[in-house]
Amino acid sequence: MAILFDKIALIGIGLIGSSIARDLKALGLARHVTISSRTGETLKRAEELELGSQYVSSAADAVEGADLVVVSVPVGASGAVAQEIAPYLKAGAIVTDVGSTKASVIAQMLPHIPEGVHFIAGHPLAGTEKSGPDAGFTGLFKGRWCILTPVEGTDPGALAKLQEFWQALGSRVDEMDPEHHDKVLAIVSHLPHIIAYNIVGTADDLENVTESEVIKYSASGFRDFTRLAASDPTMWRDVCLHNKDAILEMLARFSEDLAYLQRAIRWGEGDKLFELFTRTRAVRRSIIEAGQDVDAPDFGRHTLDNKS
Amino acid sequence: MAILFDKIALIGIGLIGSSIARDLKALGLARHVTISSRTGETLKRAEELELGSQYVSSAADAVEGADLVVVSVPVGASGAVAQEIAPYLKAGAIVTDVGSTKASVIAQMLPHIPEGVHFIAGHPLAGTEKSGPDAGFTGLFKGRWCILTPVEGTDPGALAKLQEFWQALGSRVDEMDPEHHDKVLAIVSHLPHIIAYNIVGTADDLENVTESEVIKYSASGFRDFTRLAASDPTMWRDVCLHNKDAILEMLARFSEDLAYLQRAIRWGEGDKLFELFTRTRAVRRSIIEAGQDVDAPDFGRHTLDNKS
Repeated sequence: MAILFDKIALIGIGLIGSSIARDLKALGLARHVTISSRTGETLKRAEELELGSQYVSSAADAVEGADLVVVSVPVGASGAVAQEIAPYLKAGAIVTDVGSTKASVIAQMLPHIPEGVHFIAGHPLAGTEKSGPDAGFTGLFKGRWCILTPVEGTDPGALAKLQEFWQALGSRVDEMDPEHHDKVLAIVSHLPHIIAYNIVGTADDLENVTESEVIKYSASGFRDFTRLAASDPTMWRDVCLHNKDAILEMLARFSEDLAYLQRAIRWGEGDKLFELFTRTRAVRRSIIEAGQDVDAPDFGRHTLDNKS
Repeated sequence: MAILFDKIALIGIGLIGSSIARDLKALGLARHVTISSRTGETLKRAEELELGSQYVSSAADAVEGADLVVVSVPVGASGAVAQEIAPYLKAGAIVTDVGSTKASVIAQMLPHIPEGVHFIAGHPLAGTEKSGPDAGFTGLFKGRWCILTPVEGTDPGALAKLQEFWQALGSRVDEMDPEHHDKVLAIVSHLPHIIAYNIVGTADDLENVTESEVIKYSASGFRDFTRLAASDPTMWRDVCLHNKDAILEMLARFSEDLAYLQRAIRWGEGDKLFELFTRTRAVRRSIIEAGQDVDAPDFGRHTLDNKS
C-alpha cells in the first residue's frame, strides 16, 4: 500500500496504539513511526516488539515533524497531552484521538491546538478486554466502524485524509455529531460495561453463595459478563467520569425497566416476562444479520473448548 | 460403552433433550430410546433427525417400560408431566429432570411419583442460546457440571446410577441441597439472563438513539448481552416464576450496588469506580484458571470473524 504520511506519532501504545502500529508496519503506511509512552516499561516493551521506528518518553518530542499524531490514552489524560504537545506540532499536521467519549475529549484538546493544525476527534469501535502493548494485533480494525466527530470549521481535506487512514486499516468510517456519539456509545458500550462490572461485583460480595461456586458454575451465563468486566480499569473510570450525563440517563432508563421486570417477577406476571423475552430475540437476529456478531452458538466457544 | 439402561424415555426434545438423545446414540447407552413431545412438529423433526428408536405424542405412552425417564420441559410444565406419567411408571424406574430451578420442580413432581419409583431432580449446566431439536449436539455435556439434588429418602443406588448416566455423557456430577442450588443458580445464571434481557429491552426502547445505530455499533459491548437475551422465552419466563425468592434477592442486591455505582459516577468519585473495576478483573482470571471460559480475547470471535 502507498505511504499515507511521512511521519506518524503514536502517543500511548496500549491495545489500540499498538494495533495501529502493527497495521502501519504490515501495510507500510508511514515512513517513520515514533512511539511515545509515559510508562518506561511500556515504551521498552514497544521497542522489544519493534512496533515503530523511534521510541521517546516525551510526547512533545514524539510529535516534532509528525504529519499525523494519534493520541491513544485514557480520555481523562487527553487535555494534559494536548497541552504538552501543542507547542511542538508541525503546521498542517493532523491530530486525532481514539477515545470512547468525544464531547469531553474535544473540550479538553481543541483549545490547545494551534492555528494551522487540524484536530479531528475519532473513535475506532474496536478492541478486546485485554490491555497493554502485547494485547494489540494486526487487523483489529478490519471491518469495524470508526466514528469521526468533526466540528464546525474542521478542514475537509484533513477530514478526508483521516478517513483514508482508517479505511487503509480496514475500518468503515462514519461521521457523527460528538454529542450524539456520546449518547449512542452510552447505550452500546458504556452501559454494558458498567452493568457487567456491577453484576460481577454483586456476585463477588455474596455471603450465601461462595466465590468458588460462582466461578465453578459460571458457564451458565455469568461468564459472559466477566469478559467486559475484565477491561482496563483506568480507561473505564475515565469513560464514566467523562460521559457522565449520557451514562446517567441510560442508567436511569435501565433501572426503571429493571424495576418493571422485578415487579412482574414478584407478582407472577408471566405474560409481561414472555413479551420482553421474545422481543429481545429479534434484536440478536438483527445483529447477526448486520454481520456484527457470529451466529455460532455460545459465541463459538464450544469450538474453542476441547469439545467434540 | 456398555448399555446403562435397557429403555430410556425422553420427555421433551428441545436443545437439552435432543443433545441427550444424540449422546445416547453415539455412545450406545440404551437399547431403546423413546421420544415424546406434545408438539407434533417437534416430534416429527426428532424422527427426521433419527434421534431415537420410537416417537410418541403421549408422555404416558413413552414411559411405559422405561428404566430411566428424563423430563426436559420448561419448569412450569413439570407438575403436569409428572401427573400424566405417574400411573404408567415401571417399578424401580428412575425419573429425573433437567430444569434450571430445583425446589419448585421437586415440589411439583415428587408428590405424584408412586412408591417404588425413584425421583431425583437434576440440572445439567449446559446449553446455548439456541432452542429446539435442531439446536442439540453431541458432546454438549462434556466437561460441564451436572448438579443432582437428592432429598431425604432418595435411594443411594438410584442416585449412583443417575450419576453414572451423566458421567457417561461426559459431565462432572455434583450434589447439592435444592434450595442452595436455587440460590447459586440465581446469581450465576438467572440474574445474568434477566439483566441481559433487560438491557436489550432498554436499548430497543430509546428514542434518541435509533435501533439501527444500536445494531450497527453493537460490537462495542452490547452484543455480548444479546446472546443470553436470545434464549428461549418460555424456559426463562418459567425460571423467573419458579425461582422467584432467590431471584428477587439477587435483583435487590444488584440494584443496590448499581445505585452505589451511579452515585459514584454522578459525584465523580473515580477512586470508587477504579476499585470496583479492578476487583472484577480478578474474577475473570479465576474463571479462566478454573477452565470455565476460554482466554481468547473477545471470546475468540476474532478467529471466527473473517479476520486476519
